Amino acid sequence: MATAGGIGEFELIARVFAPLAAEGALGLTDDAAFYRPRPGRDLVLTKDEVVSGVHFFADDPWDAVARKALRVNLSDLAAKGALPVGYLLALGLPKDFTVDQIDALGAGLASDQKAYGISLYGGDTVRSPAGLTLSVTAIGEVEEGGMVRRGGARPGDIIVVTGTIGDAALGLALRLDSALSMRLGLSDAQRDHLLDRYLLPCPRGALARAVAACASGGMDISDGLVGDLGKMAAASGVAIEIDADRVPLSDAARAAAVADPRLFAVALTGGDDYELALSIPEAKVDAFLTAADDAGIGATPIGRAGRGEGVAVRGDHPALAELGSGSYRHF
Amino acid sequence: MATAGGIGEFELIARVFAPLAAEGALGLTDDAAFYRPRPGRDLVLTKDEVVSGVHFFADDPWDAVARKALRVNLSDLAAKGALPVGYLLALGLPKDFTVDQIDALGAGLASDQKAYGISLYGGDTVRSPAGLTLSVTAIGEVEEGGMVRRGGARPGDIIVVTGTIGDAALGLALRLDSALSMRLGLSDAQRDHLLDRYLLPCPRGALARAVAACASGGMDISDGLVGDLGKMAAASGVAIEIDADRVPLSDAARAAAVADPRLFAVALTGGDDYELALSIPEAKVDAFLTAADDAGIGATPIGRAGRGEGVAVRGDHPALAELGSGSYRHF
Repeated sequence: MATAGGIGEFELIARVFAPLAAEGALGLTDDAAFYRPRPGRDLVLTKDEVVSGVHFFADDPWDAVARKALRVNLSDLAAKGALPVGYLLALGLPKDFTVDQIDALGAGLASDQKAYGISLYGGDTVRSPAGLTLSVTAIGEVEEGGMVRRGGARPGDIIVVTGTIGDAALGLALRLDSALSMRLGLSDAQRDHLLDRYLLPCPRGALARAVAACASGGMDISDGLVGDLGKMAAASGVAIEIDADRVPLSDAARAAAVADPRLFAVALTGGDDYELALSIPEAKVDAFLTAADDAGIGATPIGRAGRGEGVAVRGDHPALAELGSGSYRHF
Repeated sequence: MATAGGIGEFELIARVFAPLAAEGALGLTDDAAFYRPRPGRDLVLTKDEVVSGVHFFADDPWDAVARKALRVNLSDLAAKGALPVGYLLALGLPKDFTVDQIDALGAGLASDQKAYGISLYGGDTVRSPAGLTLSVTAIGEVEEGGMVRRGGARPGDIIVVTGTIGDAALGLALRLDSALSMRLGLSDAQRDHLLDRYLLPCPRGALARAVAACASGGMDISDGLVGDLGKMAAASGVAIEIDADRVPLSDAARAAAVADPRLFAVALTGGDDYELALSIPEAKVDAFLTAADDAGIGATPIGRAGRGEGVAVRGDHPALAELGSGSYRHF
């Protein structure tokens, strides 16, 4: 495979990945990298893989795919209140990749490394028989003992979500049915907003410090709001009740849900939001909302944790009858 | 995919992976794990992925595949003089996996976790369209500044390898040609030794402290002795000269190379040894050899680093003419 795509593994590393390497990665000329933790910090470790045909479309541009692979991991760090440090990448390359594709992938990584202040600590390049795969391990830091846990929600906490919910799931629906946008009467801008939100998540790392300062429990919403809140409720040993009418929707998602009310259920249960779902003690909610506004992201209280178990979605929207405890599963 | 193999993702995690989790992995009920580094230590990070049909055979038993995936990473840590701490695993599962296979995989991981004193810090489970894949990120620790580097070899150092060389490459040759063992006149025990060495590497973690104490430079031999020494020479800015007659061969490899002299070149250039190639200052060689003997692994001086560049293999074996700078490349 030394000439796959006209470029061998060593040339690939030198050309694409060495410029992305952290100091401890020694230019990626070693089998391993070192990292010197700062005193008084815990490391936060997370690992998410994306697979062609499962987590993205085979014809998605490789710069976007690379950024998505990074961002789904950075989203996990943000939800834990962790500041990102770096990542390792195992790249599975199909036989017929091109130098243009690999350069695009490198450019996507470089752009996001700069945007998020991280660098590459190593990885591996393998042949992938079925298409592009990216397995990322991301490393972040919190103050010792400070990782915000999924199981940290307490009765009385307010449930807050960042940004808007459901855009990516609706974007995926538009990708799967090219006539849907027209049937829903969406404007080009509305359609593009939803498609973009599916293609490229926006991890809320800008809020990591506020998460660490304010949240008692947290996770990112990757498998659908309702299902993920169910996981938070189970891990925390609480009940969570949300008000469907308070779930923040983008203008585009709102237009879609007005045109076809069933899409409201898609928004509440579909995956790939990569927004944060946080449980925040009442006294700290205002501080968090202010931080989210200052960051230009916004955050919205949508409900409350209480004694009991499970998730209840209150509201009289007709689509709610179909909800159940639906959670989007990649697997 | 919730019912793939008759087992959903959450059940899979609870059944197979949660029992393997480190304390900081919170029973794998969170999106991330935390790890509190010990003061005065650097972390050593490495990431190697194995792919069905590329790094192992599709019909290899899953317990062996899981152990191989772990061990190729632990081998990197050993070469860096690092003591293993834990790992993260992204598991790509084919559609038609069975519960027996996944239980075998879990048992293989559990067995090696115990053997090597490590635990699981998280990961991801995805659908893999083309067959089983395991992407492991391993974490080790060294004294601050103590990671042994590929580029650390110095002129005058002695080049030492652990164990025996070439077994795995010959085992692969036997896998690919079921009549080869008989043509070579190998005994069943010799054949099984070579096959086992391909199936299941033995990372030399028992020597990590000795590596850290003695070696100026080091790497594991994963892509073939000659080629990997070439990488060490290049990274270190030295020339390396080895004596082919001193390269340690197992009884089985020696028998194979006597029966077919070309197989001597396969042994020197084939991949998957997962032995250590170390550059050791002359004054520390005896200490390292003693440690290797005490560990029951053994180590052998095979040459020397000097001024210049490249790798020279001395000897009058007829197979040496074919060597070139051959290095097995997975990719």
